[in-house]
Parts: sequence; structure tokens; C-alpha cells
Amino acid sequence: MKRLILLRHGQSQWNLENRFTGWTDVELTDQGRREAREAGEKLLAAGILPNYYFTSYLKRAIHTLDIAATAMDRCWIPVIKDWHLNERHYGALQGLNKAETAKEYGDEQVHIWRRSFDVAPPSLDIEDPRYPGNDPRYDGLAFEELPLTESLADTIKRVAPCWSEIIEPKLNLYDTVLVAAHGNSLRALAKMLLHLDDNEIVGVEIPTGKPWVFELDDKLSVIKEYYL
Amino acid sequence: MKRLILLRHGQSQWNLENRFTGWTDVELTDQGRREAREAGEKLLAAGILPNYYFTSYLKRAIHTLDIAATAMDRCWIPVIKDWHLNERHYGALQGLNKAETAKEYGDEQVHIWRRSFDVAPPSLDIEDPRYPGNDPRYDGLAFEELPLTESLADTIKRVAPCWSEIIEPKLNLYDTVLVAAHGNSLRALAKMLLHLDDNEIVGVEIPTGKPWVFELDDKLSVIKEYYL
Repeated sequence: MKRLILLRHGQSQWNLENRFTGWTDVELTDQGRREAREAGEKLLAAGILPNYYFTSYLKRAIHTLDIAATAMDRCWIPVIKDWHLNERHYGALQGLNKAETAKEYGDEQVHIWRRSFDVAPPSLDIEDPRYPGNDPRYDGLAFEELPLTESLADTIKRVAPCWSEIIEPKLNLYDTVLVAAHGNSLRALAKMLLHLDDNEIVGVEIPTGKPWVFELDDKLSVIKEYYL
Repeated sequence: MKRLILLRHGQSQWNLENRFTGWTDVELTDQGRREAREAGEKLLAAGILPNYYFTSYLKRAIHTLDIAATAMDRCWIPVIKDWHLNERHYGALQGLNKAETAKEYGDEQVHIWRRSFDVAPPSLDIEDPRYPGNDPRYDGLAFEELPLTESLADTIKRVAPCWSEIIEPKLNLYDTVLVAAHGNSLRALAKMLLHLDDNEIVGVEIPTGKPWVFELDDKLSVIKEYYL
């Protein structure tokens, strides 16, 4: 049996401030660090010990992984950091307070941006400092790869090749793989694993800091899934 | 120009307690964490920004790297963790207090174990819990690869292929590479880079938490080296 563990990062500073985050690289809060440690402790107590790690390019996910790994005393496990596992890009809303955005654009519009499958928030301009092309960590990526904004559908489209080309091959070699990432990039993985349709996936809420364990057969089909 | 940065981990709990550590996986102290942060801050201030990381399988080095990376705001940089970069294995002395060991074996003998090039401390027995073959992180390694004890010469012998097969190829692709590791595995790299003989290298003391910067030409020959 193989196991895949999806772990959404603990509370970040902008979760706390109720701001749209997306690709903005904000840090965990003390509560977020506590959640990460507890996630590692739960995995250790359950004897579910990863032998491969994946995470995104964003420090709230990377630090969640580092802290959980330390709690499991498994810091030496290899890790791949991949920008494809970043949070959904929130376009021109990144940095805005959610309540203020609702006042400006109306509750209904904000609800559509947050909960629809394929409607993206307003795009960034490439001159905008928030545009990933202006961040050295994305140097070397093609213009077509860099989002100006994303719907959940767009996020799924870029997570899919990361799954098939990078995570799946490791799952064929290692029995227990942990992915520490973000609400929407993990939704993308859950949609594929559970064969959810577009309407079903928008209703899936993944809690922060709770390991979501998928038991898989040799063909990587889900036998069972549960939260720790 | 290429740059290679060697960073010895900050103070560990057993540095503080004056015990032989070797492959024992002890944690950094608060001072060690401070040293790691300062190392990252110095690199950032000097504009020496790594685009590839290497570290060992031991958490005092891994955490030094994580903390320095956070201080540089470069957590997303790829990392390879390689047991070949572990500290010299200290055999049956691992865990013993250095002063007590000197009382038991005599100052001169301990000096030989610590400062000779090719004399190894007493070997572990394979039944010993300190033997790496009893630690799951070294599962899959051949019996011949796992040390029962090591001289500095032995350490250099196992670091050498890590340099030529893993670090050098990355230095050909990336301009600034950081290796966060241990006194003796870094000595092994310094010996090769600076073409030091066996007597010279035993006299080289690498301070904890101070980035040692090597400027290299395209053939990876040293142009200049200095501590930050």
C-alpha cells in the first residue's frame, strides 16, 4: 500500500488579517507554526512516516513542512520544491482585505471569485510588482507559464503535470509521500485523486494543518481517505 | 564567476556540552540558531545569494540552512540533502564528554584521534545503537558505505565523490552554491579546493556560522576565498 498525505499550511499572517494572499510570500503566525508542529506530531503518533516531501515556492508551505518534519524527526527526507504547487494566483486582489473587497465589488462578485470553478479575479498588469515575472524566483519560466490571475480551473491545469510528471513517479518509488502546500493546489490534487467534478471540488474545504491521508493501491487509486 | 559558500552549522547542544558528536543527530542551541540567522543576514547584506543548496542528513546542518535561507528570504531555493556531507563519524567516542575521554585515554591519545589525519577513534560494534546501520535514515546503503568509525582521511574519501558527482555539476549550472555542513566534511571540500596536503588540512579550523566564500573561475579553480 502507498500513502499520500496532503497538508495545508498553518495559519499565515494574511489568513489572520483576512487578506487575499495568492502568490504573496507571507509568513506563518505563531498559531500556524503550532498547527504545523501538531500535524507532524499526529503523523508520528499514527506511524505514518513520509519518505518523500513536496512543497511549493512559498514559505508558509515550506515552513509548515520544515516544522512538521522536525516534529517527526525526519528532517533528512528529500524534498522537491515546485512552483506548480503554489496557491491559486489571486490576481489584482492579492493584498486586499476580503471585507473591503466585498464593500467595493459587492458580496456576490467576491463570492463568485472565491467559489466559482472557472472565473478568475481581475488580472494584474505585467508592470505590477505583484506580477510573478518581477520576482527573481520565477526567472527562467516562460511568459505563458506565469499567471496574471487564476481561476481554480487554471490552478488545476498547472498542478496536473506536477502530479503526473513529478509526484506520481516518486509515489511509485516511495511508499509514503507528503505534499505540504495550499488550499487550492491541494484541491487540484484531491479532485484528481477522488475523481470529483467541477461542482464538487469547489465545495471541498481543506482545513489548515490537518494531515489528509490517502491510502492508495499499486495503481495509485484511492482505497481510503481520512483526516488525522 | 562562480561562488561556493561553505557554512559550518551553528553551536549544537553537544558542542555546548563538550561531547563527541559525529553522526549523532543533536539539535542547535539558541546560540546556534542565532549564528545561523546571522550567517544568512551577512550573505544577504553582501549580495551573495545562493541559487542551490546542499546539506547533510543531520538536523544541526539542515536547520542552520533553513534558518539562513529564511534570513536571506530564499527558502524556495532547491536543496539536496546528502549523507556524504555528514560530520566525520566518531566511532565509539560518540556521546562521550571530551574531558572525561581525556581522563580515561590520556590527553595525547585524544589529541591524536582529534588532530591526526588518518587515525580513527575506536570502532563501533554493529550491534551498537550508534551504528548507522541501525538508523532507518541509512536504509538502502551498502554495508561497505556505513562507517563504524572514521579518520579525517576516511571522511575525505566519502566526501570526494559527492563533490565530483553532485556538487560540481550543480556549480556548472548555478552561479552561487551554498553547502551547510560540518567541520570535517567542509574540511574535505576545502582540502580539494585549496589543494592542501594532509598536514595542512588538520590545522584548518572552520568557525561555526561564518560563511566561507570561494570565488571560482569557469574551471572551478579558486580565485579568492574569504570569510564574511
